[in-house]
Amino acid sequence: MSLAEKQIVIFGGSSGIGLATARIAAEAGGRVTIVGRSREKLSAAQNELNNVEIAVADVADEAAVNRVFAALETIDHVYNAAGSFVGGTVLENSADFYRAVFEARIWGSFHIVRAAFPKMQPNGSFVFTGGVSTARPVPGAWATAVTTAAAEQMARALAVEIAPLRVNAVSPGWTDTTMWDQIFGEGKQEIFAGVAEKLLTKRLDTAEEVARAVIFLMSNDSITGETIHVEGGHRLV
Amino acid sequence: MSLAEKQIVIFGGSSGIGLATARIAAEAGGRVTIVGRSREKLSAAQNELNNVEIAVADVADEAAVNRVFAALETIDHVYNAAGSFVGGTVLENSADFYRAVFEARIWGSFHIVRAAFPKMQPNGSFVFTGGVSTARPVPGAWATAVTTAAAEQMARALAVEIAPLRVNAVSPGWTDTTMWDQIFGEGKQEIFAGVAEKLLTKRLDTAEEVARAVIFLMSNDSITGETIHVEGGHRLV
Amino acid sequence: MSLAEKQIVIFGGSSGIGLATARIAAEAGGRVTIVGRSREKLSAAQNELNNVEIAVADVADEAAVNRVFAALETIDHVYNAAGSFVGGTVLENSADFYRAVFEARIWGSFHIVRAAFPKMQPNGSFVFTGGVSTARPVPGAWATAVTTAAAEQMARALAVEIAPLRVNAVSPGWTDTTMWDQIFGEGKQEIFAGVAEKLLTKRLDTAEEVARAVIFLMSNDSITGETIHVEGGHRLV
Amino acid sequence: MSLAEKQIVIFGGSSGIGLATARIAAEAGGRVTIVGRSREKLSAAQNELNNVEIAVADVADEAAVNRVFAALETIDHVYNAAGSFVGGTVLENSADFYRAVFEARIWGSFHIVRAAFPKMQPNGSFVFTGGVSTARPVPGAWATAVTTAAAEQMARALAVEIAPLRVNAVSPGWTDTTMWDQIFGEGKQEIFAGVAEKLLTKRLDTAEEVARAVIFLMSNDSITGETIHVEGGHRLV
Repeated sequence: MSLAEKQIVIFGGSSGIGLATARIAAEAGGRVTIVGRSREKLSAAQNELNNVEIAVADVADEAAVNRVFAALETIDHVYNAAGSFVGGTVLENSADFYRAVFEARIWGSFHIVRAAFPKMQPNGSFVFTGGVSTARPVPGAWATAVTTAAAEQMARALAVEIAPLRVNAVSPGWTDTTMWDQIFGEGKQEIFAGVAEKLLTKRLDTAEEVARAVIFLMSNDSITGETIHVEGGHRLV
Repeated sequence: MSLAEKQIVIFGGSSGIGLATARIAAEAGGRVTIVGRSREKLSAAQNELNNVEIAVADVADEAAVNRVFAALETIDHVYNAAGSFVGGTVLENSADFYRAVFEARIWGSFHIVRAAFPKMQPNGSFVFTGGVSTARPVPGAWATAVTTAAAEQMARALAVEIAPLRVNAVSPGWTDTTMWDQIFGEGKQEIFAGVAEKLLTKRLDTAEEVARAVIFLMSNDSITGETIHVEGGHRLV
Repeated sequence: MSLAEKQIVIFGGSSGIGLATARIAAEAGGRVTIVGRSREKLSAAQNELNNVEIAVADVADEAAVNRVFAALETIDHVYNAAGSFVGGTVLENSADFYRAVFEARIWGSFHIVRAAFPKMQPNGSFVFTGGVSTARPVPGAWATAVTTAAAEQMARALAVEIAPLRVNAVSPGWTDTTMWDQIFGEGKQEIFAGVAEKLLTKRLDTAEEVARAVIFLMSNDSITGETIHVEGGHRLV
Repeated sequence: MSLAEKQIVIFGGSSGIGLATARIAAEAGGRVTIVGRSREKLSAAQNELNNVEIAVADVADEAAVNRVFAALETIDHVYNAAGSFVGGTVLENSADFYRAVFEARIWGSFHIVRAAFPKMQPNGSFVFTGGVSTARPVPGAWATAVTTAAAEQMARALAVEIAPLRVNAVSPGWTDTTMWDQIFGEGKQEIFAGVAEKLLTKRLDTAEEVARAVIFLMSNDSITGETIHVEGGHRLV
């Protein structure tokens, strides 16, 4: 179903995959609200796209999430792109160090669904963010591996609980976004070249390609409980 | 990437999901060839769509498949929608009774990939047909369950062999197409209503919805080795 | 490898699958410590088995878990059977209501691995508890569905982080244990009969059958990152 | 349930995993018949084990399979270990070159189930052979990847068709057996060392370890439709 005139809310919408999704949704005629923790980043994104609304909220903050949806009359689709990478093995850091990952990917989506539910329109849907680490966990990323798997399972578990509303997930690979700048710093391009060499498609996926999958999941009314992998075959190599 | 001007070949293209895919691909500006065993059905489809080419071939007939691709200069995307349902438990019929299912879904795709490969263009892809019986086999349909799983696995196995060409699969549920008329006869609507009642979306998926997934798989250059499920959550209920 | 003389620690070991595992491990000559929150239940179990040690600890309490392992010189295998069922849909209760499920199944295993690691012996292993709700989530049990999936993914993610130590999971179905008495009360037998009727094996799995899978996972030195399903085919029906 | 006095039939039982399974089953008190194409190899295995029966049959030959089971009064468990590796990409060889792989792994198991079924005893089971290539297909082994996936799916599909009889599969990794001598020749040890280095357990699995999983699947009456992976974490690395 077309996204024209649909109310679409995107958490983590000021950069990366979230921003790319906002752009495509707005171009398709959707009424788009992007949400993030930084008003500055949101304003910059708003200027860039020039036809989206913004709302400041941390997805892990239940009250803030509630305020975002309280300000909207109806809601059609919500995408939770929030969540960043926290590295370290199970042996290296305490539980508290890793809990933030779970807050954004699991409890953030929990808050979103509960707050949005009463205003969701027919054929509405939620999209969560999984990742290649579900199929291919690597040392030093256990928290990511567990939370991407949990996010994909939330899509399945909530799909059966709030049907006929649909719930899906997108599983990006190593997408070339600004998130990695902070993690890898100057070494980013070399690390990315090494990953690209291994991929079946010989290049990293782009934020736009992942965003296209999010839009597709919102638009196809017979897809639910599904995870679409956009990663150049990363989980196979 | 847009399908405009792309050469797209669809086996099983005269009806159902194949025909729906042909329609969307043609509307997107693609040069579409539909292939099937019945010239009559193909002609009818050609009249309906009015801007597609037709070719008569049984996907299980290697020489016939070769002729289809010999007639084309370049190839961008190929979808194998051929294959029908053959019912019966492992105990009820001999091996020969069930072999036809394997010929269309496994060896047909094998013939297609080998014949098309030399002419495949950059960013080209193949799409095979899996099904809900991969995740949820039911008594009396073992051959379908095994061949849909094999088709989805072929997408993965060939994705690693012919990369960077991409290979994917679509997994429809109980799509309301003419294929079921022959299988269920007059009881079809009642059976379908029973299935719809169980689904999360409370209705069967449509040929167009499945076709949209096929088109999406062709268009997204970072998706390979993937299976997209279009079935209203059938595998979860 | 035989479990004779091996040090085996079982959280949630005073009843159900944990207790059944303790019994088999002790009969196989293992040195077994069962851990639980209730000294009374642990003592009763100790009297029943008569050759196991006990330790009082809540798996979600990091300091308590640390004390359990501090008291042991070496450790070979640890099974986390702790964790109970918390019902309710995503819409029905607040986040806090559901967090306890995550504490036992995810953070409990996290505490266990960190505390036991320095004393783990060659060919040692951990076993976590998943469940049928990973493959077949049902309405009203989203928290279970997400945490069983997370526990199974932890087995995979930690298997790559702490190799060559092995990490696996067992996935029980509806096992007839005392845990369900509190949840279903007098209706238990009727509910169980309904489930059994649907299963391929026409009966619920037993705690001993699940325990046998735990023992097998501990004993087979080439199995890691694996989940074994003991549920009469529940995920297929 | 104990295997003592049970009638156990093992196709591909004269070497490798099949032979290891026969040895353990016989030691457990089972009445074991090993089946293979070569009377000479079967006799050698019989001399080695000294308490098993032998039967000459190609698992792909329906009539020969029927004769094996016609000679037995009752049957409890059947393991199909037959099937060898046929290398080559989808582009390198014709369909006929690859069909033998499908005959052993798919149609062989089909013949076995049909022939054994009328004599199967309560709590009886079948075990098929999958492999690591299901999760991790590699270039040059598409036929193996598709047939191991199909064998594992047959376990699931037939589990629902012939319940309460159970049907399972075992998925070995690169097991150090004589099969590889013919494929790799003198380079075998070097290739194996390279694989071992990558594995989480730092060594190849042994035929006995895989056989232990087969015996476990036969013995545990609540496991059906399951595949157990015995491969040192190969599918995760």
